[in-house]
Amino acid sequence: MFESAEIGHFIDKETYDREAPALREALLEAQFELHQQKRASVIVLINGIEGAGKGETVKLLSEWMDPRLIEVRTFDSQTDEELAHPPAWRYWRQLPAKGRMGVFFGNWYSQMLQGRVHGLFKNAVLDQAITGAERLEKMLCNEGAVIFKFWFHLSKKQMKERLQTLKDDPLHSWRISPLDWQQSKTYDKFVRYGERAIRRTSRDYAPWNIVEGIDPYYRSLTVGKILLEGLQAALHTPKVAARPAGVPPLPDKQGELTLLDCLDLTRHLEKEDYQEQLITEQARLSGLMRDKRMRRHSLIAVFEGNDAAGKGGSIRRVAAALDPRQYIIVPIAAPSEDERAQPYLWRFWRHIPARGKFTIFDRSWYGRVLVERVEGFCTKADWMRAYGEINDFEEQLTAAGAIVVKFWLAIDKDTQLERFQEREEIPFKRFKITEEDWRNREKWDVYRSAVCDMVDRTSTEISPWTLVEANDKRWARVKVLRTINEALEAAFEKRDRQEKKRKKK
Amino acid sequence: MFESAEIGHFIDKETYDREAPALREALLEAQFELHQQKRASVIVLINGIEGAGKGETVKLLSEWMDPRLIEVRTFDSQTDEELAHPPAWRYWRQLPAKGRMGVFFGNWYSQMLQGRVHGLFKNAVLDQAITGAERLEKMLCNEGAVIFKFWFHLSKKQMKERLQTLKDDPLHSWRISPLDWQQSKTYDKFVRYGERAIRRTSRDYAPWNIVEGIDPYYRSLTVGKILLEGLQAALHTPKVAARPAGVPPLPDKQGELTLLDCLDLTRHLEKEDYQEQLITEQARLSGLMRDKRMRRHSLIAVFEGNDAAGKGGSIRRVAAALDPRQYIIVPIAAPSEDERAQPYLWRFWRHIPARGKFTIFDRSWYGRVLVERVEGFCTKADWMRAYGEINDFEEQLTAAGAIVVKFWLAIDKDTQLERFQEREEIPFKRFKITEEDWRNREKWDVYRSAVCDMVDRTSTEISPWTLVEANDKRWARVKVLRTINEALEAAFEKRDRQEKKRKKK
Repeated sequence: MFESAEIGHFIDKETYDREAPALREALLEAQFELHQQKRASVIVLINGIEGAGKGETVKLLSEWMDPRLIEVRTFDSQTDEELAHPPAWRYWRQLPAKGRMGVFFGNWYSQMLQGRVHGLFKNAVLDQAITGAERLEKMLCNEGAVIFKFWFHLSKKQMKERLQTLKDDPLHSWRISPLDWQQSKTYDKFVRYGERAIRRTSRDYAPWNIVEGIDPYYRSLTVGKILLEGLQAALHTPKVAARPAGVPPLPDKQGELTLLDCLDLTRHLEKEDYQEQLITEQARLSGLMRDKRMRRHSLIAVFEGNDAAGKGGSIRRVAAALDPRQYIIVPIAAPSEDERAQPYLWRFWRHIPARGKFTIFDRSWYGRVLVERVEGFCTKADWMRAYGEINDFEEQLTAAGAIVVKFWLAIDKDTQLERFQEREEIPFKRFKITEEDWRNREKWDVYRSAVCDMVDRTSTEISPWTLVEANDKRWARVKVLRTINEALEAAFEKRDRQEKKRKKK
Repeated sequence: MFESAEIGHFIDKETYDREAPALREALLEAQFELHQQKRASVIVLINGIEGAGKGETVKLLSEWMDPRLIEVRTFDSQTDEELAHPPAWRYWRQLPAKGRMGVFFGNWYSQMLQGRVHGLFKNAVLDQAITGAERLEKMLCNEGAVIFKFWFHLSKKQMKERLQTLKDDPLHSWRISPLDWQQSKTYDKFVRYGERAIRRTSRDYAPWNIVEGIDPYYRSLTVGKILLEGLQAALHTPKVAARPAGVPPLPDKQGELTLLDCLDLTRHLEKEDYQEQLITEQARLSGLMRDKRMRRHSLIAVFEGNDAAGKGGSIRRVAAALDPRQYIIVPIAAPSEDERAQPYLWRFWRHIPARGKFTIFDRSWYGRVLVERVEGFCTKADWMRAYGEINDFEEQLTAAGAIVVKFWLAIDKDTQLERFQEREEIPFKRFKITEEDWRNREKWDVYRSAVCDMVDRTSTEISPWTLVEANDKRWARVKVLRTINEALEAAFEKRDRQEKKRKKK
């Protein structure tokens, strides 16, 4: 795979001086068009062999293009805030907005390669990371990112010579590489695992570009041309054509027996039972959140449901059990301008809790496959791919110790009507009912199929949906609390078992 | 000051049960109106004696009001990201947006009181912190925040009894207070310094409320009523009337000799001199940024100037000297929706560099006293107070080790015309010239007075303005680089002298 990048490509100064100015001008023009269109963000991943000109190339790009629209991000050692969140969080918080360009030095590839070269894990884990990268990039591209992946290459001999020269260069020597490149073995391993990552993640939507790094003129013009072509293609491709054609239809669920039909909405609790059980479950939650095992987890609760199903009331009963310093409630409405300039999941990544903390989402990323699907706020391709993206997202959360519980609060149509009318009559509940609620009600059946598809496709072992019979508010509130408590206990017990196993070894 | 809060206020259960529901409903109503208006944010500061019901009150508020619109923030030990930024940064990043309520547990007051009680500093430093708090709050209020400051009080005897009771309460004992309240001296000191802070920061726009904490009914109703009255007042006061009346006019500078007239705009550099000096200054900057003393500082460069004065070109020459990983360029245009929901300076605090880093602002917070003043985007009261707010802001930056350099790039009217015309003719410069630039040009004289006022009022010893003669781009670029270098060297030398002094002792 690297053969072509070890044959000594070079460009003479004359050619470079002739070609560079026009290339530069074209790049600048493309960059500004990108900024004006604000349709795509550009992510440039910089990887490869030490001494192959990574830093120099990034510097050159900042000189050629308008540096005001470029953000160069380094991801060295993680800060303590980053360590308390899922690994991908540090990348999400640094994503460039649409119209801008982010250059990621030390990105997910360097992280996985360093880990593998240092022997922190074996190939199976490397492959998991590779698959994760592939999925992340696919999703980012679908959300309007243009990704350039550069691998700057040198043969081992070239590298050794280069490091010798660089040793005396103060511009270089002050930087500390996480790998010891002076060791011959380091090069071999890095190239071997690098090849593996490149092979598996070079895809049509985000191909790798291997650039021989020995000659600066060749390297610079090559990178510049790749960027220019990619930018121009992105600028001039109509948005719709970029979508995968021919998304197969989902089977129509209307008229069919669904999970929602199997709910026994007559379930209820008497006042006395309710009060007793509520207090019991609240005390249990309060205790679990103070359990020292909670320090290694975070808790994420997602509330979805029919309008007027009682999400707010349930959330209040959960919150009432806790110290307000432990949780935060994030109400999800229409995205803000800053949020619209980012991939769909960005606005949720912003609020993912640190270890030990609890975030309650009042509506969530499932808006994509509910309201956005039904109202046509996104294309069919967008919400169809969202099921997989959401599963990936939740897998990243749970892999980092998050406990994810998801509730669908279900009521029937008559109950909803009663509650709407009540809201219109009681003065301090007026704010809870709008024209939109009545409009949504007319689409009851369409929402219903969307809910069924959602549950079928995203109720997973790592993060199952809980359907809550919510005609009776008391029943619903107690069920919500109990479900959270059971999820916490299950997670704690699982960890205890793992600890025990580890100790036995 | 605390006498009234030690006399054993209490409310019987009957009264509480009678009054609480109506209070709660009214609070909920006010909260939703606040959310709908999106005109003000609410900041609630929680301070006072250990065991006086701070936590319980916050919990009650979350139950009474809609917790989805409340963010409870704790500021315990600083994270490493927070430690690398000026102290106020941690508060700015957690400010509630307009329409929302932030409850700050462990805010600037607790930080200063803990420091003083622990003996980390003496009264003079405490007073500096008090003045800082006063200014911050004044500014936040002017920017549309409503601030409630609560001091929950107990007499020493009451506290001792309370701590005895709480010791066995698992809900309380797991929390670790940074102060050892079991010590009698701690109480005395805390109350003494607390009184000092309260006395000096109780102001019409943000008064303190001292609440006796011993009886929960009294405490809850009192806090609820104060909040309700404050919220209602904020909701029903017309925006304009809230502004300080009668801002005196600034003396008219038109026709007068100003600093700008004293600039010798014929200053220039020959090409050869330029190339030599540019390279020298760039190498110097590159060296200084790699100096290990830079780890204790951050660098902030502000670029303002006439349209077409060459800000972009100067910035590129600065950037060219550096590794792109060391700096970030922040172009300032119209604020985004998220930014508009925050106080004016919030969007700049977002980009304040960590220690060791460099942020270049292409236009800046000075927009407030330039474009916003001239175009009437803010009231006269707003931009008049901005001079002081900006000086305070820059003082906070420099106090934390930031080196702040500010450039005004000045050209004359003829030179601007030439450059405008050139921009319209050269294809890849077209994007640089808009209708707005021509409109601004018509207001040349008004901008001119605004610039003079800005320099007069914000060129300070800690962060002086540098006026750059920019008719000749070469001269301007070299002067910019040299000024940054001199500022860095001066800061390093100052620190060396301080180190030496410290060692002598």
